Amino acid sequence: WWRTRSLNAPSPFQQFGPCGRIMKNSAMVMQIQDPASQRLTWYKPPLTVLVIKKVRDSTVLSPFVQLVEWLVQEKNMVVWVEAAVLDDPLLVEDKRFQQIKDKLVTFKDGRDDLTDRIDFIVCLGGDGTLLYASLLFQQSVPPVMAFHLGSLGFLTPFQFDNFQDQVTNVLEGHAALTLRSRLRCIIVRKGERYKEALTDNETSSDRTETAASNHLFSDNQQTPNMRASTNILVLNEVVIDRGPSPYLSNIDLFLDGKHITSVQGDGLIVSTPTGSTAYAVAAGASMIHPSVPAIMVTPICPHSLSFRPIVVPAGVELKISISPDSRNTSWVSFDGRNRQELFHGDSLRVTTSIYPVPSICAQDQISDWFDSLAECLHWNVRKRQKCLD
Amino acid sequence: WWRTRSLNAPSPFQQFGPCGRIMKNSAMVMQIQDPASQRLTWYKPPLTVLVIKKVRDSTVLSPFVQLVEWLVQEKNMVVWVEAAVLDDPLLVEDKRFQQIKDKLVTFKDGRDDLTDRIDFIVCLGGDGTLLYASLLFQQSVPPVMAFHLGSLGFLTPFQFDNFQDQVTNVLEGHAALTLRSRLRCIIVRKGERYKEALTDNETSSDRTETAASNHLFSDNQQTPNMRASTNILVLNEVVIDRGPSPYLSNIDLFLDGKHITSVQGDGLIVSTPTGSTAYAVAAGASMIHPSVPAIMVTPICPHSLSFRPIVVPAGVELKISISPDSRNTSWVSFDGRNRQELFHGDSLRVTTSIYPVPSICAQDQISDWFDSLAECLHWNVRKRQKCLD
Amino acid sequence: WWRTRSLNAPSPFQQFGPCGRIMKNSAMVMQIQDPASQRLTWYKPPLTVLVIKKVRDSTVLSPFVQLVEWLVQEKNMVVWVEAAVLDDPLLVEDKRFQQIKDKLVTFKDGRDDLTDRIDFIVCLGGDGTLLYASLLFQQSVPPVMAFHLGSLGFLTPFQFDNFQDQVTNVLEGHAALTLRSRLRCIIVRKGERYKEALTDNETSSDRTETAASNHLFSDNQQTPNMRASTNILVLNEVVIDRGPSPYLSNIDLFLDGKHITSVQGDGLIVSTPTGSTAYAVAAGASMIHPSVPAIMVTPICPHSLSFRPIVVPAGVELKISISPDSRNTSWVSFDGRNRQELFHGDSLRVTTSIYPVPSICAQDQISDWFDSLAECLHWNVRKRQKCLD
Amino acid sequence: WWRTRSLNAPSPFQQFGPCGRIMKNSAMVMQIQDPASQRLTWYKPPLTVLVIKKVRDSTVLSPFVQLVEWLVQEKNMVVWVEAAVLDDPLLVEDKRFQQIKDKLVTFKDGRDDLTDRIDFIVCLGGDGTLLYASLLFQQSVPPVMAFHLGSLGFLTPFQFDNFQDQVTNVLEGHAALTLRSRLRCIIVRKGERYKEALTDNETSSDRTETAASNHLFSDNQQTPNMRASTNILVLNEVVIDRGPSPYLSNIDLFLDGKHITSVQGDGLIVSTPTGSTAYAVAAGASMIHPSVPAIMVTPICPHSLSFRPIVVPAGVELKISISPDSRNTSWVSFDGRNRQELFHGDSLRVTTSIYPVPSICAQDQISDWFDSLAECLHWNVRKRQKCLD
Repeated sequence: WWRTRSLNAPSPFQQFGPCGRIMKNSAMVMQIQDPASQRLTWYKPPLTVLVIKKVRDSTVLSPFVQLVEWLVQEKNMVVWVEAAVLDDPLLVEDKRFQQIKDKLVTFKDGRDDLTDRIDFIVCLGGDGTLLYASLLFQQSVPPVMAFHLGSLGFLTPFQFDNFQDQVTNVLEGHAALTLRSRLRCIIVRKGERYKEALTDNETSSDRTETAASNHLFSDNQQTPNMRASTNILVLNEVVIDRGPSPYLSNIDLFLDGKHITSVQGDGLIVSTPTGSTAYAVAAGASMIHPSVPAIMVTPICPHSLSFRPIVVPAGVELKISISPDSRNTSWVSFDGRNRQELFHGDSLRVTTSIYPVPSICAQDQISDWFDSLAECLHWNVRKRQKCLD
Repeated sequence: WWRTRSLNAPSPFQQFGPCGRIMKNSAMVMQIQDPASQRLTWYKPPLTVLVIKKVRDSTVLSPFVQLVEWLVQEKNMVVWVEAAVLDDPLLVEDKRFQQIKDKLVTFKDGRDDLTDRIDFIVCLGGDGTLLYASLLFQQSVPPVMAFHLGSLGFLTPFQFDNFQDQVTNVLEGHAALTLRSRLRCIIVRKGERYKEALTDNETSSDRTETAASNHLFSDNQQTPNMRASTNILVLNEVVIDRGPSPYLSNIDLFLDGKHITSVQGDGLIVSTPTGSTAYAVAAGASMIHPSVPAIMVTPICPHSLSFRPIVVPAGVELKISISPDSRNTSWVSFDGRNRQELFHGDSLRVTTSIYPVPSICAQDQISDWFDSLAECLHWNVRKRQKCLD
Repeated sequence: WWRTRSLNAPSPFQQFGPCGRIMKNSAMVMQIQDPASQRLTWYKPPLTVLVIKKVRDSTVLSPFVQLVEWLVQEKNMVVWVEAAVLDDPLLVEDKRFQQIKDKLVTFKDGRDDLTDRIDFIVCLGGDGTLLYASLLFQQSVPPVMAFHLGSLGFLTPFQFDNFQDQVTNVLEGHAALTLRSRLRCIIVRKGERYKEALTDNETSSDRTETAASNHLFSDNQQTPNMRASTNILVLNEVVIDRGPSPYLSNIDLFLDGKHITSVQGDGLIVSTPTGSTAYAVAAGASMIHPSVPAIMVTPICPHSLSFRPIVVPAGVELKISISPDSRNTSWVSFDGRNRQELFHGDSLRVTTSIYPVPSICAQDQISDWFDSLAECLHWNVRKRQKCLD
Repeated sequence: WWRTRSLNAPSPFQQFGPCGRIMKNSAMVMQIQDPASQRLTWYKPPLTVLVIKKVRDSTVLSPFVQLVEWLVQEKNMVVWVEAAVLDDPLLVEDKRFQQIKDKLVTFKDGRDDLTDRIDFIVCLGGDGTLLYASLLFQQSVPPVMAFHLGSLGFLTPFQFDNFQDQVTNVLEGHAALTLRSRLRCIIVRKGERYKEALTDNETSSDRTETAASNHLFSDNQQTPNMRASTNILVLNEVVIDRGPSPYLSNIDLFLDGKHITSVQGDGLIVSTPTGSTAYAVAAGASMIHPSVPAIMVTPICPHSLSFRPIVVPAGVELKISISPDSRNTSWVSFDGRNRQELFHGDSLRVTTSIYPVPSICAQDQISDWFDSLAECLHWNVRKRQKCLD
């Protein structure tokens, strides 16, 4: 009964009149499975589950305890939680939680490596929990199932009511996936060499770039799991702004090496389609469905009236640097974290990563997205013609 | 020396933690050659060339004569022009043109079928010439080389100065191509059956839909070459508007069968990425590079303040119909032509066609696009900080 | 207990340093009473009341009958209604209405002159009823009290529940007024002389124009014979658009005789502050409180990205004409009515009229406006931070 | 030959039908001279002139020396300059300047009181020089004549070429004036009392508020001349933003005591009409002519899609405070200076001041404004239809 509609455009007909053809270039051919057909399967049964809950929100505690208890007792899964979670005074007093507490595995953000240890992630709370999951897993991310509590979020499509049935359903492999692309960002400091990663072999480039960028997070001890990498993968956006300076930044924007424009204003947002509905939309961007392979570039309060946001192909590499004649420096932040100064001579490189966040759909890619547009942004929600007749 | 950068995102890594995988679905896998590597080649040497010139613009005449003369005499090509062109009084007086006139092949728009007869198209004038080429070739389009006269257009990247070298270069097969996606539109009148073309076999669906829609262009005799098809392919956009009615339209928008929203306002623009810089940008849309596989949906003067434009994957099918409770009907036009009324019970279906317009780049996809943004839209062109310090 | 806050800015201090002064120009001094203090008073008790009800809406009938019955029987007022209202089949069947029907005075729109015959207006229904009242009274407008049925409108602040108390209160002279400025529009046809009304003595020009304009609203004469040009007063906006033409209009905009800019796009909206929340806001304008003395000029889908709406002082005179080099003409409509073509050589003149619509506030000017922004435009109505954490 | 057109709307006709009237309230009547007729006159001949030049711009030096020399030698005026100007190494080397240097009067910003000592101000450079003049004179401002060097600014309409004739012309009293309204801002710290200045007697309220706000500029020693006042008058805007916090601010906005809305986003701009073309326009505001008596409220990157800028009457008082439930504080800055934190319980009050900046027009209010829109914002400057046909 269930048919898959395409999200990808059909393969274009490659003859153009009687004589014209596309020149074949097998090195540049890739296979793509239609996003509409992306469904989760388990190579082997998932045994370990990481539960991430919203911090500082007491309404999450009861669902959290219910969920963890059920995963441990009914599903016999090994449940991981962040160590800090156990310190919550309200949980300490919770008798039900105390009974299962010893069965949980804990880790410390920034100290323990989660790579290859987690089969499945459940998020509980707001969109921030998924951003945190993205931060924890800077390479391959286990499938993420995200529950909102209260009202739908862009990244948290599931409601908690009958979580048991829903989690069971996912664990049995029945779930549509949205592969949310992430942006691979790297700051190249003045004087450092940057081997442009045309082949986009992230693993190998990681290796060569490690030495140069040990200092990347040096002034931010909150950052987890990044010993061996200077790439930062963002799920929403990387923002370049003028920081506390009252003067406008002058930022040069390059695309695949070509100088595209100079930005004068409060800053610039480079976002994924997922991030188009976060900060970018507040700065005036159009909303892009997460399965469109694209990068969005949005100015923040640009001085030029004609500086409209643009959408470019996902494969390009953007370079952002302070204009040589700019009076002041800029600041960069990654999904709202790791804020650091960008000095004259430094540059920020951004392109699409090979490591998306596999986000499990509550319904399907289309319904989930439009439901969240209506719920989170009130997109075109109105009383019909009430005030117009 | 020349390396191809990708425009496509890298293939995502398909393992998600130790256990998660994408479920393989070979039926939904397609091969895509990276747009950045799309270059024109000729299966056999092009012999016939269609020259389209801007109408009602006397400044085009001299370049037109030069070009046609050179194609005939130097390149020994068979040159096609529209019959009406020969009637231009200024050309009739042009002695140089009279000497080659008899060697030209003429056709009448709406009467003669050009399918498989034209190897190559040269456009001379504004963006309208390329829209006209798109209109003439409603299936496979021969490669198009478009010259602007005066200033750069979005669709006319070549300057005419040394046209001989540039055309020769293209005829020898050295040219980057932008495959500009088109939207396949069909109006299904009330009571007609519409077999949803999930397989997107446009040729076969054309056949089944022919009978039902003979009347499509019945009131517009200017339309060429459409005997056997009711699909209309647009290069820029299809527009639904309220027409002369002073009342706001109520239009229902469906995406892959799901009711997405109702539009209340002056109308709705469904555009290709190419069309994002045409009418859509005037209605507030972000600009999308032509190689991003997407469809843009932009409201025209929507009553709802929150009705921002959206960008959806190129493979979806949109359906647009008059809301049952709407007082009035709407009007549809295709790339600014074939304007017709959409009545209660009718619907307009739109999706990406398999027949793009192969548009030859002057430089490359990225440079051509950003140059035209600056030239045509003054995108972020300004005096730096002059009025701000 | 009740204190009047100013809406007008304080009178500026007119000494600029030890020596500088404003040069006194007594001819240009005017007295303004602060809008915040504008309250209705009755020179003599109002006896005749015009009741305007929304057409084609059966839900209005019951309140209409209640209101009219009460005005006739309890308030002993002479109630006027449009003749066409009595033909409504539902009213014909309404026994209660039949009992008072004979006591009503009727008039025919376009035939009967209401000037000086109506003391008070009550509107019942949507914002359109107030626009209609504005249309009926093209000079002085009696005080208007407007009830919405269902949900608040921009122009209909009163709810019907306890209409008796509220109407009584107003009839006793306790009511804040918003003087909604109107725009005086005049089309000067090619070859006609236009005596620029610098002194803005509308009264005298009215006198000469009265005879000529009886036919103004005779519905379908589209271009009434305008030997002497006739003023049309609009409450929301005058719109110039490209009509059915697929080509963009080229419109020249002059302000106090100076050529300001040329508009290329779908059209142009010249609106009052009241109209800023009607069509203009859909075209991207900011919202202006009705007591700000200003005229708003908003392009409709302008081709230029930098063509932002502008707000100019209420006293300027705008002139709009077709650019000499424009291929096509334009169309003008006034509060959505009287649509007519503007030809090459014609011009439209617009300035603020001396005849505002005295619109009775339910609360006060500030509260009424912000309540309607929230209710009608969902202005910044949202769930706080729900989707952001 | 020269006639004055009105900028103010005509006085509205105050009879509404046969019975309705505005209730007279003589306490709320004010006299306003039409802005179009505002021309500068000198009560006595101006003798002292303050010359403000752009800092850190060597191209200003030569015009500065020419101007000062001419004012001293030809006009026999007493020329004031800021003490720091004399320290400029380039000026120290300038022989011409050394000859007149001793005739200049110097003052130190923040130490010397200029009140009643300056008859006339000449600005040389960018818009910043006028902002600085506004800062120096926090009550009555002497007439300001502002030259741009290079290209027109919003606040610097004069070109320097024949400065002698132009200055002479102004000194002889032939000049149109734009009275640029300023906003009177005051931060009321938690626990401080704030006597709401309904009478808007700024002088007296200054007195009562002095004690409470000594700390206002405590961390900013650059601020001049503010011993006896805690009001800050801004010419462009006061900005409330989230500062370095990654979290969105929650700001409550009150208008005349009524809670209007809560702002969630990067911040809020409260600007004068003059400021509408500065920061506000970058945040999406419409442009308001400086003679429209209004205050503009513009959100910065608001999370709500429907949070459009609004324009309210110039006489209202705005109050801005941190929402009680907001996690973080905000930052306030005044014309880009005096940046300081706004804590929970503090509030910022803003209304129109009685002390405008009398800015001398190069042509007239209308021409100067539209010329600067075109020059500074490229407002609707474009190639006509080039890319559209």
